[in-house]
Amino acid sequence: MPLSEELIQPWLDRRRPGASRHTTQRQEADAVRILSGTFEGVTTGTPISLMIENTDQRSKDYGEIARTFRPGHADLTYHLKYGVRDYRGGGRSSARETAARVAAGGVARQVLAALAPEVRITGYMVQMGPKRIDRSRFDPEEIGRNDFWCPDPVAAPEWEDYLNWLRKDDHNSVGAMVEVVASGVPAGLGAPIYGKLDSDLASAMMSINAVKGVEIGEGMAAAALTGRENADEIFLDGGELAFGSNRAGGILGGISSGQDIVVRFAVKPTSSILSPRRSIRMDGSPAEVVTKGRHDPCVGIRAVPVGEAMMALVLADHLLLDRGQTGGVRGRIG
Amino acid sequence: MPLSEELIQPWLDRRRPGASRHTTQRQEADAVRILSGTFEGVTTGTPISLMIENTDQRSKDYGEIARTFRPGHADLTYHLKYGVRDYRGGGRSSARETAARVAAGGVARQVLAALAPEVRITGYMVQMGPKRIDRSRFDPEEIGRNDFWCPDPVAAPEWEDYLNWLRKDDHNSVGAMVEVVASGVPAGLGAPIYGKLDSDLASAMMSINAVKGVEIGEGMAAAALTGRENADEIFLDGGELAFGSNRAGGILGGISSGQDIVVRFAVKPTSSILSPRRSIRMDGSPAEVVTKGRHDPCVGIRAVPVGEAMMALVLADHLLLDRGQTGGVRGRIG
Amino acid sequence: MPLSEELIQPWLDRRRPGASRHTTQRQEADAVRILSGTFEGVTTGTPISLMIENTDQRSKDYGEIARTFRPGHADLTYHLKYGVRDYRGGGRSSARETAARVAAGGVARQVLAALAPEVRITGYMVQMGPKRIDRSRFDPEEIGRNDFWCPDPVAAPEWEDYLNWLRKDDHNSVGAMVEVVASGVPAGLGAPIYGKLDSDLASAMMSINAVKGVEIGEGMAAAALTGRENADEIFLDGGELAFGSNRAGGILGGISSGQDIVVRFAVKPTSSILSPRRSIRMDGSPAEVVTKGRHDPCVGIRAVPVGEAMMALVLADHLLLDRGQTGGVRGRIG
Amino acid sequence: MPLSEELIQPWLDRRRPGASRHTTQRQEADAVRILSGTFEGVTTGTPISLMIENTDQRSKDYGEIARTFRPGHADLTYHLKYGVRDYRGGGRSSARETAARVAAGGVARQVLAALAPEVRITGYMVQMGPKRIDRSRFDPEEIGRNDFWCPDPVAAPEWEDYLNWLRKDDHNSVGAMVEVVASGVPAGLGAPIYGKLDSDLASAMMSINAVKGVEIGEGMAAAALTGRENADEIFLDGGELAFGSNRAGGILGGISSGQDIVVRFAVKPTSSILSPRRSIRMDGSPAEVVTKGRHDPCVGIRAVPVGEAMMALVLADHLLLDRGQTGGVRGRIG
Repeated sequence: MPLSEELIQPWLDRRRPGASRHTTQRQEADAVRILSGTFEGVTTGTPISLMIENTDQRSKDYGEIARTFRPGHADLTYHLKYGVRDYRGGGRSSARETAARVAAGGVARQVLAALAPEVRITGYMVQMGPKRIDRSRFDPEEIGRNDFWCPDPVAAPEWEDYLNWLRKDDHNSVGAMVEVVASGVPAGLGAPIYGKLDSDLASAMMSINAVKGVEIGEGMAAAALTGRENADEIFLDGGELAFGSNRAGGILGGISSGQDIVVRFAVKPTSSILSPRRSIRMDGSPAEVVTKGRHDPCVGIRAVPVGEAMMALVLADHLLLDRGQTGGVRGRIG
Repeated sequence: MPLSEELIQPWLDRRRPGASRHTTQRQEADAVRILSGTFEGVTTGTPISLMIENTDQRSKDYGEIARTFRPGHADLTYHLKYGVRDYRGGGRSSARETAARVAAGGVARQVLAALAPEVRITGYMVQMGPKRIDRSRFDPEEIGRNDFWCPDPVAAPEWEDYLNWLRKDDHNSVGAMVEVVASGVPAGLGAPIYGKLDSDLASAMMSINAVKGVEIGEGMAAAALTGRENADEIFLDGGELAFGSNRAGGILGGISSGQDIVVRFAVKPTSSILSPRRSIRMDGSPAEVVTKGRHDPCVGIRAVPVGEAMMALVLADHLLLDRGQTGGVRGRIG
Repeated sequence: MPLSEELIQPWLDRRRPGASRHTTQRQEADAVRILSGTFEGVTTGTPISLMIENTDQRSKDYGEIARTFRPGHADLTYHLKYGVRDYRGGGRSSARETAARVAAGGVARQVLAALAPEVRITGYMVQMGPKRIDRSRFDPEEIGRNDFWCPDPVAAPEWEDYLNWLRKDDHNSVGAMVEVVASGVPAGLGAPIYGKLDSDLASAMMSINAVKGVEIGEGMAAAALTGRENADEIFLDGGELAFGSNRAGGILGGISSGQDIVVRFAVKPTSSILSPRRSIRMDGSPAEVVTKGRHDPCVGIRAVPVGEAMMALVLADHLLLDRGQTGGVRGRIG
Repeated sequence: MPLSEELIQPWLDRRRPGASRHTTQRQEADAVRILSGTFEGVTTGTPISLMIENTDQRSKDYGEIARTFRPGHADLTYHLKYGVRDYRGGGRSSARETAARVAAGGVARQVLAALAPEVRITGYMVQMGPKRIDRSRFDPEEIGRNDFWCPDPVAAPEWEDYLNWLRKDDHNSVGAMVEVVASGVPAGLGAPIYGKLDSDLASAMMSINAVKGVEIGEGMAAAALTGRENADEIFLDGGELAFGSNRAGGILGGISSGQDIVVRFAVKPTSSILSPRRSIRMDGSPAEVVTKGRHDPCVGIRAVPVGEAMMALVLADHLLLDRGQTGGVRGRIG
């Protein structure tokens, strides 16, 4: 399988801080280096090891944070669990960690290119704080034109004004909702009970920093539906399987149906803000926490390429698993 | 560790079909038998194997279903993946499968009793189709008094009327939202990046039949919040860690904080309904599907003890993992 | 994949106690029952669960053993580790446990039949206590003709006399050396470092009850060789890869070469003998242990079908893994 | 847990090539660098990543080897499996790979120091080619005094002469037998059937480059013993468990008994020798292979610290697992 730094780096560049005014101004090269697993531009079948070194980290930013717990941050639980934590940038709870996911996603995309070349993965933001997109204005071309992966050309400039105000005047941050769609996914990925595709996607998306909820297809809204409304009717259209709707989000019984796989996840607002919040120090004394470092006012923006990477990783994993099964015989229709 | 059928059976009896008019009228004894792993009432340290045999299964119910795909059901994807499927009761996609989860949850509760006896797990329904509970009327005593695990004494009879109408007159089914709360969970369960507690809970809940979304704490609503709103402020209260709120749902950075763990999941309406839906047969011919078998109008009801069991399993798993760590030294405050 | 009890049972019958005078006289039906994973005679892709119930177990045999540790037996370590043990037949340390391995091996053989039908697995004994076979008399037809899987027609009756004397007159037991050969194994099974085929075979064989050593190809004798002696020279023979010898036992760098895979393992003598041995009871008091139960004088005999089953399981596992790899491109020669 | 490069490096220095005339003359600094998992000299509970960079690698040495398969080497099987291989130093089949094992062993020793500080691991060579040690001359002090980890002061100089002749005059290499003993291991490590300690040790040792056989305690020789000879009699000695012998090598039923754990493994002679051997090239043409690179005449020498490291890794793994069990209740005697 072809693999080189050149094939992974572009995905990292999409996620990179400093790419716009609206993400943290840290200048990280985020240059990936392949340590093992390839030889002369192709994989050798041995484990692939990638390394991204941190280049810009001003340790002076982390003085007070070394002693105080930021409300809503992993500071506290890392301390409770381990008694020691790497407070520089939050250690492993830092959003920096997601760079590794995007790099791994680059490898997964090579697997997809080899095994299911028709797969296309598209992520975008459908909500920033109280502001949602209008789906009637959905334009896939718009996604790459603004700094927010926003598919709604009317919402995009409104989001920009809102985020500027939030950061400069309100000293605040805001949550977001990200949607990731995979089209061209072959039917049959996933397995009953253990290794369900939806269960693996939920695990993958929930493991992204700051994510608090994951839904597939109709998602949480399915609770309000009746059986008649929810059933995606099935047809044959020119000999091909077709559906009247996609409320299932492309997954039935933990297995892909061939429809688009649609996943949404909610990203909470970053807990590092300039507004003071009450907390305590390691010695138990009360403290007012104000985070002065360079932090994203909306970490959801950077979560878009991360969500795409997690989708690629889960699909690649199942495609590889699937080729390992005995049968290979697929059910036919008609 | 003490373990016997008597310690597991009560949990199964809570989930059992036929327990009320509102769940399927199949009469299943759901009697659990411990095949291995115990000797004279205590575990021997060897793998525990449980078996629940099906007793009531009228195969005549499954005639047409053997050839036709129910819209919104795993029939189709099982066929696409494997080319062969056990159509009796949906095979492994049957809600029967959750009996095994509840039995395993009974074992997990024994682990909790040994390692963290203060843990209490409570599940209930917060929404049935369009009808939600009013949280101001929340009464934990009410949960066990009605057939719906409904904690709102006003909503419970309304839900009953609605479900009766849905089943008898509308020939329909309906979705639900289940909330599971674990209190008394020690801080420090979970791990950064791999083995995050929230990621494992998302995977566990999403793997339950018919679940389409999972959220923790504020969940999907976190997308609409600002950083000031979302931060759970931290205090010391009589030397004990205390929080101003629990928007995080008890988990920060993938690790439990000691607050209540709050998980919600959406259950879609069962796809087996008496109302006709358009579909196709295995030979590709169009069909109208009407499911005449005995099916739950709201599978969310039976999902409540299943969600509790999954919570018990994830917590027990992390408690066991945690005891395997080198340190054991926990961070102190004050 | 076709699978039924009829396809598994014959393998179990080969291992069954009571099959000859030289193995334990317990009468076990060893009837296997498939609990899950098949439907109408083929596998459904879901986990396969097999059950073999114990039918003949006279609990009166285990009186003194419940309190005393047999020298060389797992009695002691099970007690030390768990503080409780199922002393009936040794619990999970009983040779009964290997029935499950042979049943699982039956499933593995179906995988082999589907993915690598040319594979043939042959096990036999090359040594019983001090008595070794003469390889110049090796006759594959002889293996099934005697009660010892002995391939040497001269040694077989000598072994019979020896074993009769050992059991009746000497009240003793004896060790054995088993060799398992797999021919027709495709090149390329196994992986570098993690998942080495030789490492997995060593783990599998050493996990069999009473096995104390495992070797591949030249094995322990390789320590005495020089590089010139040990190198298996490589040729092309009619366009096919050929070798001057097979000191490597079919595995180079953890990957199969296409040559016969040759594994040997040593089985210690059973520790349950009629001759008194000094030991202690659970209360620490000294005891003389004499095991009166029905036990094999040479457990190595029954280890032959178990070793074959483990070979089948490891090969099937690697064949399935291998089909899950991206490339599938194999190196060509010439 | 304390961890720093200073705690790992000494173990690497023991294995390092160039340490004596008798191992390859490549000058590798083998300097380990901890990439992650520690902060201010202690572990943070997050994954520990170590890196050892290659510094001395003359690529000109690998010209002909890139096209030809060395008999007895992984060249061939890597090519057959993957169609591409990193021929520089044998890629992942290089003995360089064992440096990573020794570094990981350094981490494992810190785990042992924390959880079972009384454990001592000692490796040595008991055989080099046809020459064995005389156990009556066994002197633990001698092991570190010669270049061969030889515990027999009479054998050591003989081995030196033999190896000099083999390398300079005979242009040959030779196999070896390594023994690793762990004393002070607590009883109760390992589990029945899955996770047997002997099975894990067999897997670990067999996974070392060039190892062809593994045995525990009496090992392959157990095949020749009778039950009376093989049973290690049990006593109480001053209230402590004591044994009349240690034929079991410290493991009964897959679980440690508290006796010394004794493992031996055979290392085949390196296949890279100056004497010509017949083979073929990738294009199928016949070739005479003479390996001119700098190679160990007896790789068994460097396998001694590797075997120690594998013992440390397996024991540390089981100690961590064991602390994860529910019970913790151990059986008492007396």
